[in-house]
Amino acid sequence: MPDDTKISRKEFVKKATLTGVGVSVAPFSIVQAKNNQKVRIGFIGVGLRGTSHVEGLAERPDVEIPALCDIRRDNALQAQKIVEEAGLPSPELYTQGETDYKRMLSRDDLDGVIIATPWLWHVPMAVEAMKTGKYVGLEVPAATTIDGCWDLVKTSEATGMPCMLLENACYFRNILAVLNMVREGVFGEMIHARCGYNHDLVSNNVLMTEGGDFGPGTGAESNWRTRHHINRNGDLYPTHGIGPVAHWMDINRGNCFKTITSTATKSRILHDEIVERGGHNHPKADIEFKQSDLVTSTITTANGESIIVTFSTTLPQVHDQDYRCQGTRGIWQIGNNSIYLKGVNAYDEWEPFDKYQEKYDSILWKKEGENASGESHGGIDYFVRKAFVESIKKNTTPPIDVYDAAAWSSIIPLSEESAAQGGHPVEFPDFTDGKWMTNERIFATR
Amino acid sequence: MPDDTKISRKEFVKKATLTGVGVSVAPFSIVQAKNNQKVRIGFIGVGLRGTSHVEGLAERPDVEIPALCDIRRDNALQAQKIVEEAGLPSPELYTQGETDYKRMLSRDDLDGVIIATPWLWHVPMAVEAMKTGKYVGLEVPAATTIDGCWDLVKTSEATGMPCMLLENACYFRNILAVLNMVREGVFGEMIHARCGYNHDLVSNNVLMTEGGDFGPGTGAESNWRTRHHINRNGDLYPTHGIGPVAHWMDINRGNCFKTITSTATKSRILHDEIVERGGHNHPKADIEFKQSDLVTSTITTANGESIIVTFSTTLPQVHDQDYRCQGTRGIWQIGNNSIYLKGVNAYDEWEPFDKYQEKYDSILWKKEGENASGESHGGIDYFVRKAFVESIKKNTTPPIDVYDAAAWSSIIPLSEESAAQGGHPVEFPDFTDGKWMTNERIFATR
Repeated sequence: MPDDTKISRKEFVKKATLTGVGVSVAPFSIVQAKNNQKVRIGFIGVGLRGTSHVEGLAERPDVEIPALCDIRRDNALQAQKIVEEAGLPSPELYTQGETDYKRMLSRDDLDGVIIATPWLWHVPMAVEAMKTGKYVGLEVPAATTIDGCWDLVKTSEATGMPCMLLENACYFRNILAVLNMVREGVFGEMIHARCGYNHDLVSNNVLMTEGGDFGPGTGAESNWRTRHHINRNGDLYPTHGIGPVAHWMDINRGNCFKTITSTATKSRILHDEIVERGGHNHPKADIEFKQSDLVTSTITTANGESIIVTFSTTLPQVHDQDYRCQGTRGIWQIGNNSIYLKGVNAYDEWEPFDKYQEKYDSILWKKEGENASGESHGGIDYFVRKAFVESIKKNTTPPIDVYDAAAWSSIIPLSEESAAQGGHPVEFPDFTDGKWMTNERIFATR
Repeated sequence: MPDDTKISRKEFVKKATLTGVGVSVAPFSIVQAKNNQKVRIGFIGVGLRGTSHVEGLAERPDVEIPALCDIRRDNALQAQKIVEEAGLPSPELYTQGETDYKRMLSRDDLDGVIIATPWLWHVPMAVEAMKTGKYVGLEVPAATTIDGCWDLVKTSEATGMPCMLLENACYFRNILAVLNMVREGVFGEMIHARCGYNHDLVSNNVLMTEGGDFGPGTGAESNWRTRHHINRNGDLYPTHGIGPVAHWMDINRGNCFKTITSTATKSRILHDEIVERGGHNHPKADIEFKQSDLVTSTITTANGESIIVTFSTTLPQVHDQDYRCQGTRGIWQIGNNSIYLKGVNAYDEWEPFDKYQEKYDSILWKKEGENASGESHGGIDYFVRKAFVESIKKNTTPPIDVYDAAAWSSIIPLSEESAAQGGHPVEFPDFTDGKWMTNERIFATR
């Protein structure tokens, strides 16, 4: 790992001062953390997702959880109990409304903070956390606007505090094996990839209740998530798909996204489902949802590859993140979990991936697969949490950094812009300011 | 079938006269054909593809093959032998160079003609055939330019002679079962489809010889097809993919293509393969192929659906036409040949398609599947040939008509235009002049 990814307090203060960012300078506690090998992590948002992270981190011997914040006291109490039952000191709770997270962030005994709140809170909370000297672990997507992406990048640069996107999909066992193969040149030169997030969140009552309702008080995600479908129309959730692909293609490390074209279909499901569940007189039956049922995007890269990204969380379908990795020497796809390699496989014949999975298995999974697989999402959450904790302990740039967070999340607003213009290509901002040309790989290299 | 799809000699002559198209008015022989129930079909191009059609038609009791044309006399002799061995009168051969097809078309004893020549010959030959009063069966793609598409449409309208695109993929057994399901509303309202032509034509020496050569005299398709990869860059072969989808979506019959955005990757395989096979001093090693290794397109429709179309004939991969049919109630995809229907299948669980294949099996396959499956391409060629012959016998518009031929083939030049502009959306011409709004379905309805 190059030295310049280290974070020093000196650099942090210097940058914060030079750029004039309003920083509440908190005692920089990472050095202490390194000494006692316990990192102290606070949580903003302990709903379904945050609680899952609490459970995972409470089991780690190198983590303490001194503080928990949630606007719902029930959530906080439940998470507190989990921490206590793990034998850790009971965390202090911050449940006094929407801005109580700021009070928590003003503590000087937190090394890092995990943010797992509704999307629109991600940027202000992460920005505040960095300004108070916390190492940030941010749930996906990092931001939903280009300004939000820039805010994260600029604040991280100004404060010297890292912001890791907690993109668990990057740690799928097959995704990591394919990454090893890409890096060893098994697929030749990269040409194309596919990915997406196609997951029916209607039938399982995530986006609406059984009665067809959504909005505040209706459910964990229907509380806030469905609202985005009224006013937006784009790929609202791109990072589970694009994260793995970005690593295959060395995005921000020798390569970068160039343009995106996005196409939106008509919008049917949410309206029809409300009527089906609640009748034409349902109070939400006359809402016109702007979000289409399926958004398809094509991204181009500086190195001449293309990427198809799909998004649908309303259509009835089998959950499919649709990964495909294609190069000049072969192809792997998740659909049949099979591979075809030139000169290896008989013409036009797929080979099951199993043999390659074993041969190119990630060191992470080889070492800790058994421990990991008992944890949430089949183990990938274990690895993303571990990466976060280890980055704090080692005082390094996280393997999925603020530039990745910005580039991947920027697909949301860029896809909206393109779709609104009938698929007109839109250029990606360069959040790295040219450093994508010289940045070294940091994901899954150590 | 509506009466206005009938072709009358009166109408034919009237149209030809009114529009002033230069027509060599040939005796209109279709009425005679109907009486003796033998249709007389000539062939232009009896290479691999044309010969396959000769074999198939020679077996039909309702077909005679009085004439064969090919610039290679060997091809013509071989096809002649096939006809003779089927017990039919020996066809006259036209092998005196590139324009000898005109001499064949001047005959007055041909009801129809099948054209299976290199792509650039399709339009001039089909136009001449229609002008001489022949019912045209045209191999795919119909044309490679927008002007070519219009030439076919205008000539067909002026002469009253139909031009059927011989798109065999429309007759796949699963494609037709899915079509029945779409028409019965099993998938709800159509939202999305995928299709493509991804077929490694390099490894099997179609696009170049074992020594890395191509061009005149090198092979059946490397003779002419590879040349397109030097100067063009688009989806060069869209109809196998889009044909089935067009029927699912009623394109030109209540719906139409609106826009296309196309994205081209870098170009590697052809150059690298030439060098790999013939070394850096190979005479073709310094050719810069403009055609990228993969072109992905997204098409929008008047009814608000989107279609992803992919094209690659150079990358090492397993042949994949990548069909997917997705509506508001469910999805079918060819990758795992499985289906998911809302309210039928357990959440997030695919069901194998077999049961549906049986239930919604096309009447064509039910009746004649056994006969058909012995023929080329697993039987689909039997059905496309039968449709052509039956259309002539019944004196009707063919099930895949000149407007379909134009719309589907126009993807080639439109994708080139879009890709050249970095994915800028390009509008489809309306070859039907608005009649797509009122046209009735004709494919697989009788």
